[in-house]
Amino acid sequence: MHHPVKNKNGETIASAVTNLDLHDIARIGKTYGVAAFYVVTPLEDQKILVEKIISHWVDGWGGVHNPDRREALALIKVRDSLTQVADEIRATANVPVQVVVTCAAEKDQALGFDEFKYRLKDPANAYLLVFGTAWGLTDDLIESADLVLEPIKGNTGYNHLPVRAAVAIILDRILGAA
Amino acid sequence: MHHPVKNKNGETIASAVTNLDLHDIARIGKTYGVAAFYVVTPLEDQKILVEKIISHWVDGWGGVHNPDRREALALIKVRDSLTQVADEIRATANVPVQVVVTCAAEKDQALGFDEFKYRLKDPANAYLLVFGTAWGLTDDLIESADLVLEPIKGNTGYNHLPVRAAVAIILDRILGAA
Repeated sequence: MHHPVKNKNGETIASAVTNLDLHDIARIGKTYGVAAFYVVTPLEDQKILVEKIISHWVDGWGGVHNPDRREALALIKVRDSLTQVADEIRATANVPVQVVVTCAAEKDQALGFDEFKYRLKDPANAYLLVFGTAWGLTDDLIESADLVLEPIKGNTGYNHLPVRAAVAIILDRILGAA
Repeated sequence: MHHPVKNKNGETIASAVTNLDLHDIARIGKTYGVAAFYVVTPLEDQKILVEKIISHWVDGWGGVHNPDRREALALIKVRDSLTQVADEIRATANVPVQVVVTCAAEKDQALGFDEFKYRLKDPANAYLLVFGTAWGLTDDLIESADLVLEPIKGNTGYNHLPVRAAVAIILDRILGAA
């Protein structure tokens, strides 16, 4: 999610898409078998940029040079809003879609990693797992979700993981073989 | 490790340091409480570049603007070779240093994640965990190590994680609270 997210002062912004987030999260998603990787931004120039990057790797020279990268970046779809993504999944999945947001802070009644891993084995629901860029998802967006996933705890008080690392750790915890 | 690593054709090269690897791996390392993050490259211009980046965030304006980032980047030390790093740790730790290499391929008698997690609780040894950039550590380097860690398996056959993601997943598996 690049909108709505918070900046350092807690204000709602649209963050810039970074090339490396696209590559890293697509490769991590492909490793753990996610169905799709939606990049959400309402900004037209950002959407054009993402489409250009995808096209280079999926249809263009990048994919010829590096077929593994093509396979990963083919997971990416660019959409305007979380609502649009959820509606699209709902329309094709024919099962209820549960929106699960991630958040670095502790929340009441958060969904545990083991519980989520268990629920994912049941095909009666589709799950849309939401990660914020910049300083995280807005409070309104978190409150509107069906479920909030428990935060990652390392073994220190330091709590400033890049979104790329959070995606890697969370997908490994809920979908990894270990 | 930026040298010795392999390129796409299996030849030994020195890879370029990327700014984002420094930031991401430092933040992940800080989250999981590692003692130090050594960046290994024998190339003088690369060493100067890394020192410049560290200095901006640790002593300069970057750290004033973002103290969390300063705390993470203060973990970084730049050295010429793995031997130099191991000798340095040996000299200060006063315990044997076990060099544990990571590798995307299956190896005989690989150290399992659970077993490594268990061993880390014993202060009788220090562990130096080694990650390769580019197309991975050279075979010679892997063979010279004390231990080879088992590879990360997602739940697909896709096996092309960025080094940043591999660091995140492995530190979470061996040091995470879950």
